[in-house]
Amino acid sequence: MTQQRLAYFFGGGRADGDGSMKALLGGKGAGLAEMTRAGLPVPPGFTLTTATCLDYFAAGRRCPDAVDAAMQQALSQLEAEHGRKLGDPQRPLLLSVRSGSAVSMPGMMDTVLNLGLNQATVHGLAQETGNAWYAWDCYRRFVQMFGEVVLGADADRLEDAISERKAARGVQLDTELTVEDLQALVVAFRAAAAESSGQPFPDDPLEQLRLARDAVYRSWFNDRARSYRRIHQIDEKIGTAVTVQAMVFGNRGWRSGSGVGFTRDPSTGEKVLYGEYLLNAQGEDVVAGVRTPEPLERLRASLPEVHAQLAEVAARLEAHYRDVQDFEFTIEEGQLFMLQTRAGKRAGRAALKIALDLLDEGVVDEAGAVLLVAAEHVEQALHKVFAPGQQPLVLGRGLPASPGAAAGRIAFTAEDAVAMAAGGDPVVLVRVETSPEDIEGMHAAAGILTARGGMTSHAAVVARQMGTCCVAGCGEALIDVAQGWLVLGGRKLATGDWISLDGTAGTILDGRLEMVDPDLDDPALTRILSLADQFRRLGVRANADTPENAQRAAQFGAAGIGLCRTEHMFFARDRLSVVQRMIMSEDAAEREGALGELLPFQREDFAALFVAMRGEPVTIRLLDPPLHEFLPRLAELVEEVASLERAIAAQDAMVRFLEVSEADEATIAGVLEAIARGEETLAHRRALLGRARALTEMNPMLGHRGCRLGITVPGITRMQARAIFEAATTVAAEGQPVRPEIMIPLVGSVEELTDQRAIVDAVAEEVFAERGTRVDYLVGTMIELPRACVVADEIAAQADFFSFGTNDLTQTTFGFSRDDAGVFIHDYVDRGILTGDPFAHLDQKGVGRLVAFAVRTGRERKPGLKIGVCGEHGGDPSSVHFFHRSGLDYVSCSPWRVPVARMAAAHVALREAAEAAETNGAAST
Amino acid sequence: MTQQRLAYFFGGGRADGDGSMKALLGGKGAGLAEMTRAGLPVPPGFTLTTATCLDYFAAGRRCPDAVDAAMQQALSQLEAEHGRKLGDPQRPLLLSVRSGSAVSMPGMMDTVLNLGLNQATVHGLAQETGNAWYAWDCYRRFVQMFGEVVLGADADRLEDAISERKAARGVQLDTELTVEDLQALVVAFRAAAAESSGQPFPDDPLEQLRLARDAVYRSWFNDRARSYRRIHQIDEKIGTAVTVQAMVFGNRGWRSGSGVGFTRDPSTGEKVLYGEYLLNAQGEDVVAGVRTPEPLERLRASLPEVHAQLAEVAARLEAHYRDVQDFEFTIEEGQLFMLQTRAGKRAGRAALKIALDLLDEGVVDEAGAVLLVAAEHVEQALHKVFAPGQQPLVLGRGLPASPGAAAGRIAFTAEDAVAMAAGGDPVVLVRVETSPEDIEGMHAAAGILTARGGMTSHAAVVARQMGTCCVAGCGEALIDVAQGWLVLGGRKLATGDWISLDGTAGTILDGRLEMVDPDLDDPALTRILSLADQFRRLGVRANADTPENAQRAAQFGAAGIGLCRTEHMFFARDRLSVVQRMIMSEDAAEREGALGELLPFQREDFAALFVAMRGEPVTIRLLDPPLHEFLPRLAELVEEVASLERAIAAQDAMVRFLEVSEADEATIAGVLEAIARGEETLAHRRALLGRARALTEMNPMLGHRGCRLGITVPGITRMQARAIFEAATTVAAEGQPVRPEIMIPLVGSVEELTDQRAIVDAVAEEVFAERGTRVDYLVGTMIELPRACVVADEIAAQADFFSFGTNDLTQTTFGFSRDDAGVFIHDYVDRGILTGDPFAHLDQKGVGRLVAFAVRTGRERKPGLKIGVCGEHGGDPSSVHFFHRSGLDYVSCSPWRVPVARMAAAHVALREAAEAAETNGAAST
Repeated sequence: MTQQRLAYFFGGGRADGDGSMKALLGGKGAGLAEMTRAGLPVPPGFTLTTATCLDYFAAGRRCPDAVDAAMQQALSQLEAEHGRKLGDPQRPLLLSVRSGSAVSMPGMMDTVLNLGLNQATVHGLAQETGNAWYAWDCYRRFVQMFGEVVLGADADRLEDAISERKAARGVQLDTELTVEDLQALVVAFRAAAAESSGQPFPDDPLEQLRLARDAVYRSWFNDRARSYRRIHQIDEKIGTAVTVQAMVFGNRGWRSGSGVGFTRDPSTGEKVLYGEYLLNAQGEDVVAGVRTPEPLERLRASLPEVHAQLAEVAARLEAHYRDVQDFEFTIEEGQLFMLQTRAGKRAGRAALKIALDLLDEGVVDEAGAVLLVAAEHVEQALHKVFAPGQQPLVLGRGLPASPGAAAGRIAFTAEDAVAMAAGGDPVVLVRVETSPEDIEGMHAAAGILTARGGMTSHAAVVARQMGTCCVAGCGEALIDVAQGWLVLGGRKLATGDWISLDGTAGTILDGRLEMVDPDLDDPALTRILSLADQFRRLGVRANADTPENAQRAAQFGAAGIGLCRTEHMFFARDRLSVVQRMIMSEDAAEREGALGELLPFQREDFAALFVAMRGEPVTIRLLDPPLHEFLPRLAELVEEVASLERAIAAQDAMVRFLEVSEADEATIAGVLEAIARGEETLAHRRALLGRARALTEMNPMLGHRGCRLGITVPGITRMQARAIFEAATTVAAEGQPVRPEIMIPLVGSVEELTDQRAIVDAVAEEVFAERGTRVDYLVGTMIELPRACVVADEIAAQADFFSFGTNDLTQTTFGFSRDDAGVFIHDYVDRGILTGDPFAHLDQKGVGRLVAFAVRTGRERKPGLKIGVCGEHGGDPSSVHFFHRSGLDYVSCSPWRVPVARMAAAHVALREAAEAAETNGAAST
Repeated sequence: MTQQRLAYFFGGGRADGDGSMKALLGGKGAGLAEMTRAGLPVPPGFTLTTATCLDYFAAGRRCPDAVDAAMQQALSQLEAEHGRKLGDPQRPLLLSVRSGSAVSMPGMMDTVLNLGLNQATVHGLAQETGNAWYAWDCYRRFVQMFGEVVLGADADRLEDAISERKAARGVQLDTELTVEDLQALVVAFRAAAAESSGQPFPDDPLEQLRLARDAVYRSWFNDRARSYRRIHQIDEKIGTAVTVQAMVFGNRGWRSGSGVGFTRDPSTGEKVLYGEYLLNAQGEDVVAGVRTPEPLERLRASLPEVHAQLAEVAARLEAHYRDVQDFEFTIEEGQLFMLQTRAGKRAGRAALKIALDLLDEGVVDEAGAVLLVAAEHVEQALHKVFAPGQQPLVLGRGLPASPGAAAGRIAFTAEDAVAMAAGGDPVVLVRVETSPEDIEGMHAAAGILTARGGMTSHAAVVARQMGTCCVAGCGEALIDVAQGWLVLGGRKLATGDWISLDGTAGTILDGRLEMVDPDLDDPALTRILSLADQFRRLGVRANADTPENAQRAAQFGAAGIGLCRTEHMFFARDRLSVVQRMIMSEDAAEREGALGELLPFQREDFAALFVAMRGEPVTIRLLDPPLHEFLPRLAELVEEVASLERAIAAQDAMVRFLEVSEADEATIAGVLEAIARGEETLAHRRALLGRARALTEMNPMLGHRGCRLGITVPGITRMQARAIFEAATTVAAEGQPVRPEIMIPLVGSVEELTDQRAIVDAVAEEVFAERGTRVDYLVGTMIELPRACVVADEIAAQADFFSFGTNDLTQTTFGFSRDDAGVFIHDYVDRGILTGDPFAHLDQKGVGRLVAFAVRTGRERKPGLKIGVCGEHGGDPSSVHFFHRSGLDYVSCSPWRVPVARMAAAHVALREAAEAAETNGAAST
């Protein structure tokens, strides 16, 4: 049980908390406190801290007495400030009760609005406002929401009751219902809620408040919230705060309303007040997407003074927070109230523009601008667009909710989307509207299409955050989820049909369009990356095996190649047969002959890489995969042999049949000839099969591969080293600097490195002597086995550099095969056994500890040892942060992730500097 | 370059060194110094330290000047003591130059004898002794040996020259050659040596000494020595010392001789002076096995006063060294000289008897007795014997050179032995005599048979040390290595034929005899193990899956079961079909049904184990292997399906043929019926194939196994837990204590353990409630993944115990699959990249560091955490030592290795105590 303050009051221009207290007050609570302090028009309220949520669960889902007492005291303060009392039949105070954790989890947890109404207060409210319809609409909303959220009533059943009544009345809108209708609905809802909870609907407003508060606490562990936290890797131990606030009413008539907005356009970054509102509506109506809201621009016409006030508030918010803000507001009879503000989520290109505009406007400095662009934004800015020259059939239009392009097979449910995506094809999730229950399917989808809802609907917000292309609110789409069809633009499409989405234009296109990667000459991108480069310490290289890839890597700003997988050169069509000959060779001479044929191919490849990289380092990994990977698959060979045998058996039988039926000799001869040809093929395939069988391994990942090949077949290492040095000396002779870095894979003990290094050094001397010239080169090793980490000190003595192969290191540290582990890793993540896929985000606690140990002990042995990483993690922002903090010199990743890595590297350097400044500040006080 | 003393003199009852200085003086040098100090008759000499050997190599195979100067100074001291001078034509001093490292490597390095002879000194020696034949025989021996060892002359060519001369003379023995023969041989040998070295044969005795010394240094890195060190895991950085000693002459006539002996019989342990000698011979003649020597007992008759002196010296040696000694001696004209002594190698049962006899004689105390029995001795004492009731054909008899029994296929060369053993069948290596070149083949062989050589021949000494059964000196055997046959007892046997050896009786038997394991009621074994148990701290458990194995384990002294692999119960014939049904189940109900059928089987098995272990802990590992291991192999299914398809195709063709040839309808109907049956079988096999395909993994070792099964299919864990607790409560109800310890396999993160532990605990409570009784139990985990070691602190918080699975941990730490790595591990060991097979001996530097880290951090989190090991390493002595020093509580190994582990555990505890005493002693001075 905590001894800290439990409730933080805000209102009337003063607040107990402030914006820095997100961990304790949640984003919402801290934001309201900060907004109050900033003098913005905020209805008074108080926040029960996140600690009280944990106390609630620690006490066995019971609110401790101290929390309850603190709540009542804060409530008194609120009542005094607002001049209304909870349950007062004359001037009733109505409250909102909202969740809010340190990390934004939009829509994942529960909220109760209009709390405090009962038969007495609803009449009071009607009398006070002179608007019985308004009062009963509030009461209907409260009973419906409280019934669903707190008492577990079935939402569909309540919603159906409204629809039935509207149908009975022959009306379309809620606002067309009568007071009597609303009263009847209240009665029906109370009965339904009582039935589902087994207890009468509570009429004591304080009891209502207690129950709502506890329901909000509980919603921290509902399925949606757990799922969201898992996907976004949010710690469940942070808990949620509960903010209780005086209600202001957007539904008090047509000079009232609610809205949400951004201080700038979150899709384009343009400096315009951006958002949506609905008159005579509460905020939930705007985000739920049930009524399609109006763009904020219209407010200028309908309520010009409110619009002006909103514009002024927006400017104040940006200056205060030094960032784009996403806010919620309510207009009560022409008076503006600000309910919430937070950093606005934005699309990739918008983030670039916003950061640079704020920099140019003097709101942020260069470091601030870099920090405003998340690595994910850069990734989004690199999103696909459709290949030009296609003439797609436009099926329809919606809102451009999240930029980018997608083509996929249609799925109508989240479950289908997950299942179909697991099958390998991209998926477009098509829904009437999305809800938090759909989160898994949205995550699995390449694109999202909804028929209802605006730019701030659930689908739009979540899709932008995920960086998934989304077209929202396409009202012309007819969707039948149960039957599995979509009718749009005169076509009927079914589950599994191909469709394409343009999330930037908001169009829906027929079929599977081809996509191309974005133009990267965007000056905003170039500028922000250049800014980032000023701050980062970590070098960024690219993994590239071909000159084309190497050139692209250089364009993306890679300072060299961190991993060239030489086996990719072996797989080329004209070489594979030579490689197979090498593998099938019966003696050393034959093998050397085949290796000799491979030499010129490899030399050419390396020369092209050296030329492409213009003197930047090129790290070449010697042959890594087991040799059987270069032969046809065993199962294919077995089946081919079996099918040849079957064919020959059938032909044999046919010959006998033809003989009996006295067919002509030419026919029989033809079949016999076919049999002879078949038998020849069969003999060859059987030989291949024999070799493939001999090379087959139970666990090829742990088998005869990596430097183990070079040690048992030194000719391979000699050939590859010769190709590298011949290429290097040739290119150098043409006047271009070269920096080959030769990397020995899968080293587990220093003796392996010593053995292979001796061969490489000897070949280098041979080639240098032959060519009469030298080039500088390094010989280093992949650190990709736990044992290599453990004996890194010894290995460092023989290595010019380390490059962590965190893919393989993850495999062996966990004992997970990437090829097989998918089956249970999914289960593991679902059940919280793993916080994320360790192949996507470095497992810092396990694998990371081995990495850190190897870095420390390797550098103790060889100070200044050059260390990088060349696994997939090199392009993952959280992993890049870890590598920076572990003291690596560089990361290497696929060319497309190079900009992301540059950005992530800058962020971690800036944050480290900020932390150091804070620590120094703390130390000097 | 070392600054220590370089040469250590001994002679005339005083010595610079002593017996403790093995590391510096080698076993031989330290032994001679100690013998000299003990007042034994030792010819004077000096030892160049092992450090000088390393200096020699460090200086680029050049003897540093300081070493040379120290040698000359020591030589002067030797000359003064012995009253002879090197090169003195009147009273020439002759020298022996021998190798000797800290660890005995018999016969692996080079030796030069009779050094100092040339044309002048040979005449002086002839004159001095009045025996020209003797002088020239010495010279012949010197030139032959120096020529081979130092100058690289071809040994066979020199030996052939002697044979030719004997043939020309028509004589059999060297002693029958004339002085002229010997002179001619000297001339021929000098010429051959000059030819092979390209330089004249050196006549300056000091030059001879320098060259011989350097040759001994160089022999440290000859192939034999490297191979021996690899097999015995001896560090190459210890180097060899060089001992230079005045020669005394066993070949000075028939009152002279040389011999080797043991203070007790090394095969039986009996307290008799045991050994062999040859009159008129130098020591090399005895060990070379060229002339078959006489047993020492005969010396009593031929030279009784020498025999008496030898017996007195033997007693003094045992009392001095507190152990059986293996010594070399020379008799020069009736005077005894001791040349060497060292701890005598002995066979397993002999070691037991010797240790207990020395204890009973008061020579050693109980700790001393335990230390005299190596873990390997206990292993040897557990050797196989032939099954009774067999009536084998005795083909011949030889010397019982190394105890035990063997049956194997005949190989005539070391290469064949290695190759055939790799094929899987046991091998008996049959040689005329063995030499150090045969070491690999001897290692691979299950038994060794030689036609020549005595009980101290190379074959006998090495075989005893290896614990390999050996029959030596079977003179009646006719062997043709080139043709590949052996004629013995009237039968002609070829390569690959089966033969059996009884190494205890010395008989060679026809065919492949059945063997049984030894009787373990040997009171000596029981007594020594009981003594050992007093000293060890480490507990010893057994790995056992069946009640029979559990009973055997208990007999062997296992204190509980450390690993019961429950999947072994799944493989039983009557259960496998149920297991397959569980795997093939389409839904949860079907799966639960199959699991329900398995429950009673498992319950019965566990109950029997609990009963067998009588209240000792029983560690049960939950299901570990991937499920596809319980289905037929994929390749087999593919081939079965193909063959069924082929058969049906052929039958189809036959039907058409029969129809065309108008066969009778019954025949056609019969074939059609066969087709229908075949198609039914085919359908079933195709279903199995489909499931097997779905479950197939690229790397099953890193796949869906271990606790990953229990997490994704919790029903398996529930069923196994229920079986355990039902069995435990049943057995406990019968009044017998039970201690189940449930082990969760392949845990990599604490969340996995928490998940599985929750199931086990819940089932326990269910069963306890149903039965109305409780039993104590533990839930722990295998630590067998690098990640588990890294996060051992977290895991410890949830575990009642750790048990290291070092087999799997070795696989993932190295990235070696046990199933595949054999191919290159052999290469690796050959080339010194690995010092040994890490699956046989724990890799202390890599895997061991992870183990030590997990122990330390696990116990920091949970002090007193119970920790054991249940991999194969639990029965390997060097690994047991490591586990003790790492602080483990117990090791668990196969029942047959339990006595070995008990012994090894005592040794390490005693050594640790001795080290502590030494440290305390050092600290208090």
